[in-house]
Amino acid sequence: MTLDESSSDARAAAAQVNPQRLLDAIQALASFGARDDGGVDRPALSGRDLQARRYLIERAIALGCTVTTDHCANLFIRRAGSEDLAPVMTGSHADTQPSGGKLDGCYGVLAGLECIEALNDAGIRTRRPLEVAVWTNEEGTRFQPGAMGSSAFVDPTLMDRYNTVADATGVTLAQALQQHAQTFPALARRNADQPANQPAHAFIELHIEQGPQLENANLPLGIVSGIQGVRWYSITCTGVAAHAGTTPMPVRRDAMTLAIDVRATIDTFAHTLGGDDTRVTFGRWSVAPNSINTIPSTVTFTVDFRHPDAAVLAAFDQQIAQCAQRDGVALQGLFSHAPVAFDNALLARLTEAAAALDTPTMTLTSGAFHDAMYLARHCPTAMLFVPSRDGISHNPLEHTDDDHLVLGTRALAHCLATLCNEP
Amino acid sequence: MTLDESSSDARAAAAQVNPQRLLDAIQALASFGARDDGGVDRPALSGRDLQARRYLIERAIALGCTVTTDHCANLFIRRAGSEDLAPVMTGSHADTQPSGGKLDGCYGVLAGLECIEALNDAGIRTRRPLEVAVWTNEEGTRFQPGAMGSSAFVDPTLMDRYNTVADATGVTLAQALQQHAQTFPALARRNADQPANQPAHAFIELHIEQGPQLENANLPLGIVSGIQGVRWYSITCTGVAAHAGTTPMPVRRDAMTLAIDVRATIDTFAHTLGGDDTRVTFGRWSVAPNSINTIPSTVTFTVDFRHPDAAVLAAFDQQIAQCAQRDGVALQGLFSHAPVAFDNALLARLTEAAAALDTPTMTLTSGAFHDAMYLARHCPTAMLFVPSRDGISHNPLEHTDDDHLVLGTRALAHCLATLCNEP
Repeated sequence: MTLDESSSDARAAAAQVNPQRLLDAIQALASFGARDDGGVDRPALSGRDLQARRYLIERAIALGCTVTTDHCANLFIRRAGSEDLAPVMTGSHADTQPSGGKLDGCYGVLAGLECIEALNDAGIRTRRPLEVAVWTNEEGTRFQPGAMGSSAFVDPTLMDRYNTVADATGVTLAQALQQHAQTFPALARRNADQPANQPAHAFIELHIEQGPQLENANLPLGIVSGIQGVRWYSITCTGVAAHAGTTPMPVRRDAMTLAIDVRATIDTFAHTLGGDDTRVTFGRWSVAPNSINTIPSTVTFTVDFRHPDAAVLAAFDQQIAQCAQRDGVALQGLFSHAPVAFDNALLARLTEAAAALDTPTMTLTSGAFHDAMYLARHCPTAMLFVPSRDGISHNPLEHTDDDHLVLGTRALAHCLATLCNEP
Repeated sequence: MTLDESSSDARAAAAQVNPQRLLDAIQALASFGARDDGGVDRPALSGRDLQARRYLIERAIALGCTVTTDHCANLFIRRAGSEDLAPVMTGSHADTQPSGGKLDGCYGVLAGLECIEALNDAGIRTRRPLEVAVWTNEEGTRFQPGAMGSSAFVDPTLMDRYNTVADATGVTLAQALQQHAQTFPALARRNADQPANQPAHAFIELHIEQGPQLENANLPLGIVSGIQGVRWYSITCTGVAAHAGTTPMPVRRDAMTLAIDVRATIDTFAHTLGGDDTRVTFGRWSVAPNSINTIPSTVTFTVDFRHPDAAVLAAFDQQIAQCAQRDGVALQGLFSHAPVAFDNALLARLTEAAAALDTPTMTLTSGAFHDAMYLARHCPTAMLFVPSRDGISHNPLEHTDDDHLVLGTRALAHCLATLCNEP
């Protein structure tokens, strides 16, 4: 195959994307767990999720694909290639937040299926297989942590721990996986014990931004260069509870006054260290004794710091530890994840796809976690974003304009077709 | 009776106060509801409180006093006078906080009994009767609001509402009062329907300070010129919940950032308006959705502002209303009480008593509420404070040095003897 032929396939695939079919599929998948307010409530491996999976499997088979599963009930919808090469992978997740929208995760899965259908319609046979993955339990609201399916794909040893995790009603993941296997007895199960058994040429995840950057820049597509690293800390400030009426101001030791001061210090050095890329959030607060007429004695609050640069995260760790040397301040680390940098060659393919569609783009870093964060340890990986109205997500109000949904799918089809023809 | 005779009675009464008897009585009363940590847990009209009342009634009768009660189970322990004149009243309350100390309230009751005993020992017959009141449910932890007994003494119409109030287990005040009546069938019940039926020449309440001012000034006695007025407000600040990782800092509308700013504004004008007498406390906080990785959308916090000057309180009302005009800020008034100024003639009697005992004093305002706040509407009223170690109260660690407890009781005896000989 020549470069020209590959480029022609990519253009044809993008052109064959069918807007109405894509939008209909989004509505159809959203019917499984539909909420009265227009949102979706579909916990991972719930009865509603099994119905949704049945819909996806039946559609995949109708498109001539094979469907397999693995130790974490991930689904792999494969369109065959002409050569015995590692597949190009795309996809996302189909579970939702309890009051989630129709697009978070689902868009990436359905855009992947639409790309397969577009390749079929265009009569294209690619060299490599194309696989649409449906990763299990990305949201982490039924079973903690999130991204179980993609992380266990990359590191199978995690399953020993994941299998014992129970949901709020006491059902373990192992039991939910058994239920999934009984529901879909015809699905072949891949041997997922060794990641090397499942080589992938690339993984491209298409997702809604869940933030306002594309909308603010009035751009329809974002090339995602990586995922921010994160630090979660808890800070406890201690003062002395005393009577609101009898205690003169100068002798008070108000834990909230201290907490506000510590918050300001952290906020300042977070911005100094991280500049415009800084995301710092103080989201959870608890105050004791929390009484109108008693001076607060203890205030605990959380710090969520994110940045794409590992050096900045390390400097933040150092400064927050120093800040916690103050009298009455105690620090606890809750969670930490290094930044992820996506594959430069794949970013170039995405840029070429956008250029072929005459679409302006911006390069941005993902602030949210995605399955791609784990896949990046396994194979060359990148992500593509479409705008989220008002940056809203995890909410029934989640919305992306139809034009943007279609454009993102065309860019994905272009990129996947290109990658599938790579030697 | 000449002025010299009265002065001689006052000195004799003060001299006859018996330190060990007073301290033993404090220990004895603390045994009813004693906690393992040295504190006391004695809810109003509980079984433990009824036992404590039996102890007080039996001791009063042994001292030759008559004991009566009223519609709110207040106890009145009366030492007769030689003339048919309105009594001089003293006393406080005998209920405690769930983890209270031995002194809050109890000290004032037991010092009153010690004064009766000192007058007896000195062989003094005063012109006016002396009455030690034991006010019901001052703490307000079993039945809300607090100071039920003293407020219903001053305003009998309150009983209609108070009778229907239930404790945490569903027992109403009316039922608890019936239990009290059945426990003490021999107590005569006064007709409390008309406050004018129960004239009083004066009410003097001796209490621990529950704050650090006397200790900080290293002074053993405080002449209390009044009780601060108070305003309780709740402020709700509204922002927009959004993803901690995806939302750039400049577009965030963090409700906690707004709340901290509003708190600082209120703190500043509270101090500007009220100067050194200002007490301002932001004690109760609630944050929604209170999640590590979500920007706070709603923060509600309370404001407790106290000041002795009604004009300052009114100016505070005006400024906080103006502050609540800001976008995203809503204000709710929760409680309000005007400042109380005690009777100047009584303050002079207390100053004379301290001078007669060669005791230095300071004049201060009470930041806490007391039964005297309500009695001040009924008759000339004043209070006397002794120091609280570290300002601690409502806590088993509550402590006042024995010397100070004795000195306070001597000053009370001097003042009561003087007042009881007034025409």
